[in-house]
Amino acid sequence: MESGQKSAAWSGFSGCTALVTGGLGFIGSALALALNEAGARVTVVDSLSAGDGGNRENLNGAQGIEVVIADIGDKLSIQPLVERSDIVFNLSGKVSHIDSVNDPLADLHSNTISQLAFLEVCRRTKPSVRIVHTSTRQIYGKSETASVTEESPIRPIDPNGISKFASDAYHRMFARDFGMKTAVLRLTNTFGPRQLLAHNRQGFIPWFIRTAMTGGEITIYGDGRQTRDILYVDDAVDALLRVASLPELTGQVFNIGSPFIHSVGEVAALSVELAGSGSFRLIPFPEEKKRIDVGSVACDYTAMTQATGWLPSITLRDGIARTIEYFRPRLAAYL
Amino acid sequence: MESGQKSAAWSGFSGCTALVTGGLGFIGSALALALNEAGARVTVVDSLSAGDGGNRENLNGAQGIEVVIADIGDKLSIQPLVERSDIVFNLSGKVSHIDSVNDPLADLHSNTISQLAFLEVCRRTKPSVRIVHTSTRQIYGKSETASVTEESPIRPIDPNGISKFASDAYHRMFARDFGMKTAVLRLTNTFGPRQLLAHNRQGFIPWFIRTAMTGGEITIYGDGRQTRDILYVDDAVDALLRVASLPELTGQVFNIGSPFIHSVGEVAALSVELAGSGSFRLIPFPEEKKRIDVGSVACDYTAMTQATGWLPSITLRDGIARTIEYFRPRLAAYL
Repeated sequence: MESGQKSAAWSGFSGCTALVTGGLGFIGSALALALNEAGARVTVVDSLSAGDGGNRENLNGAQGIEVVIADIGDKLSIQPLVERSDIVFNLSGKVSHIDSVNDPLADLHSNTISQLAFLEVCRRTKPSVRIVHTSTRQIYGKSETASVTEESPIRPIDPNGISKFASDAYHRMFARDFGMKTAVLRLTNTFGPRQLLAHNRQGFIPWFIRTAMTGGEITIYGDGRQTRDILYVDDAVDALLRVASLPELTGQVFNIGSPFIHSVGEVAALSVELAGSGSFRLIPFPEEKKRIDVGSVACDYTAMTQATGWLPSITLRDGIARTIEYFRPRLAAYL
Repeated sequence: MESGQKSAAWSGFSGCTALVTGGLGFIGSALALALNEAGARVTVVDSLSAGDGGNRENLNGAQGIEVVIADIGDKLSIQPLVERSDIVFNLSGKVSHIDSVNDPLADLHSNTISQLAFLEVCRRTKPSVRIVHTSTRQIYGKSETASVTEESPIRPIDPNGISKFASDAYHRMFARDFGMKTAVLRLTNTFGPRQLLAHNRQGFIPWFIRTAMTGGEITIYGDGRQTRDILYVDDAVDALLRVASLPELTGQVFNIGSPFIHSVGEVAALSVELAGSGSFRLIPFPEEKKRIDVGSVACDYTAMTQATGWLPSITLRDGIARTIEYFRPRLAAYL
């Protein structure tokens, strides 16, 4: 992350001890690097579960970040890490909707069982620890309105939405019922450097970028005019740091949306243009994808802006350019 | 259940093979007896988990009902039972809100992990099986409106509400995404014979009845004027049978409320009057109970009545009288 992107929120992390779960993953590793740069003592824990986003390459060459390979539900590994932490960024979990349909139990294990076990360890080991958890706007499902707020109906449409909602709700409940210091961020489509490129089950944006970079043909379902609000990872990291810096964490929940709304076709065209390779074409929407597609829904982040001043600043074009720049010299480690 | 209570829905179960999970529990055993009487071949499965509602006394003396002691998440035990079943009434789970606060992981295990494992066994073993699942109106939490419909916001306020919502959502999702035949009933406060009386963590009504029957003093939190919609178990059983008899199960969800709305003080007074013993007094609302009290909320069951013709018919007075009549000769087996 460039120095120019730093927000005032960062300075408060100097000297603090931070634990990032899922810290070898896409957003986790970007956050760990940002915290490290801000002067925090950073430990990341990651299960490196096959097919998920964890990749040792993501922290390759990073100085001073301790890496522990463990499931966050494993009390023996986790307890000493929590004990010494001032703040936990709890980002671990499965994000693939397709994987959750194919193996709902594995999805539940990562996203709910391990999460609740982790919260129980925090409650019993260090009830004063601050916990910021990443949830997903996917829990709202297909909305009847163009934009979802934190009060919109919860209507998950796949197992991943159910397991993520449970974890989201547990984090808030631990604040309300047990007085713990938690907050939950419901992220919209986020992309950027270090995101998994090995398969196409973690979102269309990294897959488009990979396909373009490797000179392939991007396949777009439907007419390509369906829109998404799209967030660059540095803006997501900034959101996490701002929420972590709030004076009180009381189980708040914030949508982390984006003002950058683009059609799927636009993402494909930009990826091809900025990669300087690849192409794209339209095909009819496959039946099995239709079921878990949430459609053109934006995530209202007014509450987040009001509480923290956060506003996304990195455009889709800039974000794709930076992503390609990151992956270009190290693409082989991600394929 | 008396013959006079039988609805037309019952006749269709003659000769069918039914599995009732949680079948040694309160509602499960009443349902198993009703199905048995209707001519179904009935198997019940129950984990007899300590402190939950399962009690062998509930089916004591019942002829022709097979009882299997197993966790419904245990594939080896469950698979052969599902294989031979036409219909599954999936009622197992933990219902105590206080227990869920004290041990959220045990609550998650019973109500979500075992439930999802059970659904996976059904999907892989017998995708054609019909599944009727009991959820709870507790998942709506404290509503801002006087009455909750199936479309009301999902705002669980304790771990039990989270784990039950996940199971509720999985059952509906398995219909939508995997074409399975499921329906979900969200039950309001239900009481009657065979309900757990051994401790006071499964609802205030059985505890009031037990306290009155044993000549004790019923403690009412607050002024006793908070109201609840209260359903007698035979009406709940009738609801289960009616939904199971619908031509198509497509992941429908129905509130199972009651027109019988009574204050907590009234329940206490009726229990004392009909038991002919005991007394009651008011005390201030304890802080830790306040957090998980949902307040005076009724459960709108219009959709259920429209779909099945179901209407609750047993008044609170009749229900309490029948409950006392059931427990009187066998109270020792429930204390």
